[in-house]
Amino acid sequence: MMTIKDVAKKAGVSVATVSRVINESGYVNIDTRKKVEAAIKEMNYTPNEVARSLYKRKSKLIGLLLPDITNPFFPQLARGIEDRMQEHGYRIIFGNSDENEEKELDYIQTFIQNNVIGMISSTNFPEKDIYSNLKIPVVFLDRTSNDSPSVYADGRKGGRIAAQEIIARGSSKITVMQGPAHIKPAQDRFQGAIEVLDEMGITYHVIQTSSFSHTEAEQWAVELFDKYIDTDGVIASNDIVATAVIHEAHRLGKRVPQDLQIIGFDDIPLSSLLSPSLSTIRQPAHDMGREAAGLLIKLIEQDKVEDKIIQLPVSFVERETTRSIE
Amino acid sequence: MMTIKDVAKKAGVSVATVSRVINESGYVNIDTRKKVEAAIKEMNYTPNEVARSLYKRKSKLIGLLLPDITNPFFPQLARGIEDRMQEHGYRIIFGNSDENEEKELDYIQTFIQNNVIGMISSTNFPEKDIYSNLKIPVVFLDRTSNDSPSVYADGRKGGRIAAQEIIARGSSKITVMQGPAHIKPAQDRFQGAIEVLDEMGITYHVIQTSSFSHTEAEQWAVELFDKYIDTDGVIASNDIVATAVIHEAHRLGKRVPQDLQIIGFDDIPLSSLLSPSLSTIRQPAHDMGREAAGLLIKLIEQDKVEDKIIQLPVSFVERETTRSIE
Repeated sequence: MMTIKDVAKKAGVSVATVSRVINESGYVNIDTRKKVEAAIKEMNYTPNEVARSLYKRKSKLIGLLLPDITNPFFPQLARGIEDRMQEHGYRIIFGNSDENEEKELDYIQTFIQNNVIGMISSTNFPEKDIYSNLKIPVVFLDRTSNDSPSVYADGRKGGRIAAQEIIARGSSKITVMQGPAHIKPAQDRFQGAIEVLDEMGITYHVIQTSSFSHTEAEQWAVELFDKYIDTDGVIASNDIVATAVIHEAHRLGKRVPQDLQIIGFDDIPLSSLLSPSLSTIRQPAHDMGREAAGLLIKLIEQDKVEDKIIQLPVSFVERETTRSIE
Repeated sequence: MMTIKDVAKKAGVSVATVSRVINESGYVNIDTRKKVEAAIKEMNYTPNEVARSLYKRKSKLIGLLLPDITNPFFPQLARGIEDRMQEHGYRIIFGNSDENEEKELDYIQTFIQNNVIGMISSTNFPEKDIYSNLKIPVVFLDRTSNDSPSVYADGRKGGRIAAQEIIARGSSKITVMQGPAHIKPAQDRFQGAIEVLDEMGITYHVIQTSSFSHTEAEQWAVELFDKYIDTDGVIASNDIVATAVIHEAHRLGKRVPQDLQIIGFDDIPLSSLLSPSLSTIRQPAHDMGREAAGLLIKLIEQDKVEDKIIQLPVSFVERETTRSIE
């Protein structure tokens, strides 16, 4: 059957634009309107009334709760969500929780007041009553929650790969930077890394960190070399922290990767532009966002959901902060 | 007069939480409720009915249109906006325009359908009819528009400062990277830089770029040194491009800042963590967001607006990609 998507594709415009032309609602540029009408005529398209009423339904608002949009991992997630939602005519109300429970509750409350019909949440509190009591579907993103719908990357495996790669490339005095205690994905990757180090009988040091903030990253990098100046391999808690470690290593005259190897986590967009470019464990952030949006749309539209728990793979991105395997 | 804000401050919670306690609407943690009730009693606070009805008014939604949240300058703006809006109980519907006019129109249309009561837009098309025909207040952010409410940083002055600083620090074979032609703030900073170079009679080269994307930044850095291998000073169109230039300079064995000075634009959070850390022209992004939100709130609440065009200052942040002045 011919759908509105086919018309949009043919006319080279968005589904929302075709819908506005069909429903004669809202602003459409005159040339665009002509293109759409030509496509409708050429394809002999008749709008499906069910699809029309669905599109015209009042709220197509989704609530999105992220920890902090200034951490460059999260804008990637948000773009993935938005790109998918936009294709389906959904719009996003957005809030940063700062991993703070009260702020999170405030946002959920006001999302509901604004008639959101679904929610995507990167929360540290998925087990809270507030979520189980919601009458709308929720997808947890970058977080797991027993059997609730969720999309996340395999953090534990990511940590395991980081440890395996840094060992295979010759580091033996390894320091693992442990991410914030209350952030589960950070703990998963930490656990994965130390599992491998323990299995291989390699001693290691741990630097504990309490946030992913840019300003504090530098302090932990300083602490790292204050305590363990001889370390020859650092598994960082994320790419921001890894960037600070490269900076501090340079300041101390250490050569990366000859004297010191560093592996980050996330693969934020700037990783490949650093000097040296950062070897890291890639999370497919944009895809994670798209998958979460797709799952939520299915739940909202009561489509069949094959798998409500979606784990995406991580991978090692080899760049210049690690040595070649000989 | 005692206000709900005073109660919130006393109880150490948000205004929204106090409101929920007063209105007996929605979820409030039992301990939090007790704290709020104690504060109300202690301060002898009686909720103002006007304030109550204002708070209970249905839509407190604001539309926010940014070019691309994966450019790390924009999350800073978004945080500034959100932090201020959150204090006042407003919520944000968010969209990325990708500097695409049709996408922007789609978003504006659906913002209106969702009853937003104000809008903040970083648009390249502020003169479009769609904006002048809106019945709600709009603030242009990081953009100027004749006499419409707007908040922006002084890009032309930023460009001038970049040129003055790089010349004062001894570069004489300067290349200016010109940002995308359709983005006015990018052109302002470019014009400012070449004004100074012309005034001082210094010859320079120009590399034209067409986006701020991370992936393309590397290509322009390669093109830069392909064409002008002898350049000893680069004024980059933003910090992402500057990061790519540092990377490419290292790859070619150039020493930064001894052989080559680089100045960025924006002061994104990672700038200070780069190796070497990036000297740049700082735009006060978080403050710009806060100011735009404050201005929009005043317009919505019909408060007196002293100045509806707010230009914020830029400043040179001296780090390691420029030499000291001798």
